[in-house]
Amino acid sequence: MIRVTILGNNSALPAYDRHPTAQIIELREQLLLMDCGEGTQIQLQRYNIRRRRINYIFISHLHGDHYFGLIGLLTSMGLLGRTAPLCIYGPPALKDIIDLHLAVAGTTLPYVLHFEGLEEGVVRDLVDTPHFKVSCFPVIHRIPCHGFVFTLKGSGRKLLPEKCKELEIPAAYYNQLKQGEDYLRRDGRLIKNEEVTTEGNPDKRYAYAADTLYTESILPFIRNADALYHESTYLDDNRERAFDRFHSTAAQAAELAGKAAVKRLLLGHFSSKYQDLSPFYTEASAIFPDVEITTEGTTYEI
Amino acid sequence: MIRVTILGNNSALPAYDRHPTAQIIELREQLLLMDCGEGTQIQLQRYNIRRRRINYIFISHLHGDHYFGLIGLLTSMGLLGRTAPLCIYGPPALKDIIDLHLAVAGTTLPYVLHFEGLEEGVVRDLVDTPHFKVSCFPVIHRIPCHGFVFTLKGSGRKLLPEKCKELEIPAAYYNQLKQGEDYLRRDGRLIKNEEVTTEGNPDKRYAYAADTLYTESILPFIRNADALYHESTYLDDNRERAFDRFHSTAAQAAELAGKAAVKRLLLGHFSSKYQDLSPFYTEASAIFPDVEITTEGTTYEI
Repeated sequence: MIRVTILGNNSALPAYDRHPTAQIIELREQLLLMDCGEGTQIQLQRYNIRRRRINYIFISHLHGDHYFGLIGLLTSMGLLGRTAPLCIYGPPALKDIIDLHLAVAGTTLPYVLHFEGLEEGVVRDLVDTPHFKVSCFPVIHRIPCHGFVFTLKGSGRKLLPEKCKELEIPAAYYNQLKQGEDYLRRDGRLIKNEEVTTEGNPDKRYAYAADTLYTESILPFIRNADALYHESTYLDDNRERAFDRFHSTAAQAAELAGKAAVKRLLLGHFSSKYQDLSPFYTEASAIFPDVEITTEGTTYEI
Repeated sequence: MIRVTILGNNSALPAYDRHPTAQIIELREQLLLMDCGEGTQIQLQRYNIRRRRINYIFISHLHGDHYFGLIGLLTSMGLLGRTAPLCIYGPPALKDIIDLHLAVAGTTLPYVLHFEGLEEGVVRDLVDTPHFKVSCFPVIHRIPCHGFVFTLKGSGRKLLPEKCKELEIPAAYYNQLKQGEDYLRRDGRLIKNEEVTTEGNPDKRYAYAADTLYTESILPFIRNADALYHESTYLDDNRERAFDRFHSTAAQAAELAGKAAVKRLLLGHFSSKYQDLSPFYTEASAIFPDVEITTEGTTYEI
């Protein structure tokens, strides 16, 4: 199960106790931080999430509401004596920003910071472990920006041990069976995978797209995701404003969720124009039923 | 009256709902922001202080807990359509940091930002208007750091109009009388100032010293201030740690307040080691009686 905890779901201006963008994605024991708006370290405290459990940070783009909390978090981790390496993925200029802040303060972090710059438009896997994978894809915003897909890998196909023994398949080959492979016996008989396995736990995929205008160019990356977090800065009466500012409306996010056939749509990145968020639900659910208006401090289980 | 509202009084790590350093100093209608730790714009909202009323910002030094909220505040002011110029005084490298953040986001602020770099060790007046004055002085910290004195100018001496008329002093000279000057009549008679004026409202002075280790070098700048905000990161049992980290203890702040003969001492910049702050009062008040442990959201009238 993927657990997504929203730390901030407001757009540029903090308002109504809604904070700029940040969320924690829990994949087994790993905590990944997706974007890091101002005040993220304070939100982490508020919701009792341990900073030191975060080993990966992803920054979608360099508008302040997505990263102005990063430098504070990095230095606090240092003050707290972190020694484990930390991996950050974001636009290449983010490295210059971090270095400048550390240099003026004469600060040397007590841990290794692995920074990997994401060039504009790149599609690729960033982290790939036996348990999870994170990849990025380009979205369309005023400045270079990426969306991300977080995959919790399933267990593979489930072995039927009795069947395997009966058919004299050596245990050394079990892992390949779990991956769906067939087995060719020495006597020339081909054992089809379906004879000795059943379906296991499938992968779970969580896709994140903020900030972006409505674009079907991201469909290949988000298709069939178990959940999609898509920005919905505005309501449909501000569709033009959304377009001008490279943002989306709730209705557009819902339309895209439908075309991508995702299982659930989580909405966030609300403009501070709106105090009451219920119209976002009304608009989106008319188009795509499985929609949720995210709230800060809530954990969504996927 | 000077009104000082504490927005953050914790040291580096935010803790126990105490935030990094920031305070608003109200001098007549002007709001001045002294330091701007992460989350300052959110604290301003929390305490209903209008961002657009701030025209002057002072940054003591470039440790993150004193300025990581600045970039967010500047961009939010822009998003809110500010057009009035904003004056910022701080270490010269702060300009590079602001410029880099704006450049990567492709942001042009809709208002003029006057930046004035404070070179290490400089003592000078930064703002001088008919109503108030702000000056800076060096404190001693791990990196270059300044303290500040905020002066609300008094009304000058109070005229005795009957006396002035009786002694045939022309009205055109009244302003000089208020400034304490004598008047030489055409007939050669010298009218001493005390004959035609009485004492007016005196200047009020608020001095700010964070972060600094205990140093008597700042006495000339803070002497007789109506209030001194002095950092007290640690209690006396951590006196060595305070020295090593260029910070002060509550007892040291109190000792300095006594030597400077200030009227009141406000303590802040508490280490996140301490949840209970009452020992800071106990330690300091044993040495200097008029001491207060500042609390966030409280306005101190000076």
